[in-house]
Amino acid sequence: MAQRNLKEQLVEGGSRVLFANGFHATSVNHIVAAAGVPKGSFYNHFESKEALALEVTRRYSASYAVDRLALGEGPPLERLRSHFEATVERTVARGVEQGCLLGNFSTEMTGHSSAIRALVSAAFDEWSAAIGTVLEQAQGAGQLSRATDARALGRYLVDAYEGSVARAKVSGDRAPLDEFIATTFGTLLVA
Amino acid sequence: MAQRNLKEQLVEGGSRVLFANGFHATSVNHIVAAAGVPKGSFYNHFESKEALALEVTRRYSASYAVDRLALGEGPPLERLRSHFEATVERTVARGVEQGCLLGNFSTEMTGHSSAIRALVSAAFDEWSAAIGTVLEQAQGAGQLSRATDARALGRYLVDAYEGSVARAKVSGDRAPLDEFIATTFGTLLVA
Repeated sequence: MAQRNLKEQLVEGGSRVLFANGFHATSVNHIVAAAGVPKGSFYNHFESKEALALEVTRRYSASYAVDRLALGEGPPLERLRSHFEATVERTVARGVEQGCLLGNFSTEMTGHSSAIRALVSAAFDEWSAAIGTVLEQAQGAGQLSRATDARALGRYLVDAYEGSVARAKVSGDRAPLDEFIATTFGTLLVA
Repeated sequence: MAQRNLKEQLVEGGSRVLFANGFHATSVNHIVAAAGVPKGSFYNHFESKEALALEVTRRYSASYAVDRLALGEGPPLERLRSHFEATVERTVARGVEQGCLLGNFSTEMTGHSSAIRALVSAAFDEWSAAIGTVLEQAQGAGQLSRATDARALGRYLVDAYEGSVARAKVSGDRAPLDEFIATTFGTLLVA
C-alpha cells in the first residue's frame, strides 16, 4: 500500500511539473520534490524520466474517456459541445499556461522519444475518430450535412482545439478556448 | 563583413538545431557546431541562447510576410489558399517533424521566457488579423457570408493550421497539412 502511494505521488507530482515546465526542463529532482517523496524511491517505480512521462501521458489521455463520447444521450452536436466545454473547463482549472499535455509533448518530444511520440499520435487519432463518430451520428440525426466528410472534420476539430490551447497558453487568457467553442458550434457546425 | 557572416551563420545553424531539438535540448555547443563557427564567437553576437532564439523566431515570423496577404491580386479566397499552400510546402521542405517554430515555442517556452512568449503571441495575433482581413475581403467579393465573424474565423484558421502541424509532426506525415487545406477550402469556406 505504501509502495502504491509512492508511485501515485510520483505520477501526480510528475504530472504537475511536466505540465508546468515541459520534459527537458524537468529533472528527477524536480519530480521527487513535487511528489514529496525521497529521491531514492523514484527508480523503484520508474526506470527513467521518460517512463514516468509515458505513464503521465497515458493517464492524461485516458482521462478524456473519448470512447464514451459516442455513447451518451441527447442530440449528437449538443453532446459534442458538452464534451468540449468540459475539456475547456479542465484546462482552465489546471491553468491555461499549462496547456494540453498531448499538445505540449507533440512539439517538444517528437525528436526525442519515439514512445511518447507514438502515444501522442495514437491519442490524437483516437480522439479525432471518436469525434468523427459523433459527427456521423449528427448526420444521421439531420444536424449536419451528409456531404461533409465527418472523419476529416473530426480531425479538423481536434487540430483547431489544440491550436486554441497553444494560443491560450501564450496569451495567458482563456478567450481562445471559449472562441473555439463559439466558432465551432456557432459557425462551422450550423446546419 | 566577416563579423556579419559569423552572426548569419549562428542564426542559420541555430535555427536548424532549435527546430530539430527545441530550446532546452539545444546547447550553445550544439549551435556553434551546427553553424560551423568557433565557440568563442557566440557571445560576441548574442548575450544568451534566449537572445539567439528570439532572433530566430523574429526572422521566422517575418518570413511569413503576412502584411502582404491583404495586398495581393485575385479573388481573396484563392489568395488565402495559395498562402496556406505555400506555408505547407515550406513546412514539408523543412521536414514535417520540425513543425512550426511558433507552435514549438508556444508549448515549450511559455513558462520559461516571457520575451519569446510575447513574440509568439504577437506573431499569432498578426497572422490571424491578416487572415481576418482577407476573409473580410472575401465577404466584400461575395465569396463568404457577411454573417460570419471574419476576425474570429481568421484566428480559428491559424489554430487549425497549428494543430495540423502538431499532428503532422507526431505522425511524420504531411497528410494532416494537406487535409487542413482540403477541409478549410472544401468544407468551411464553401459559400
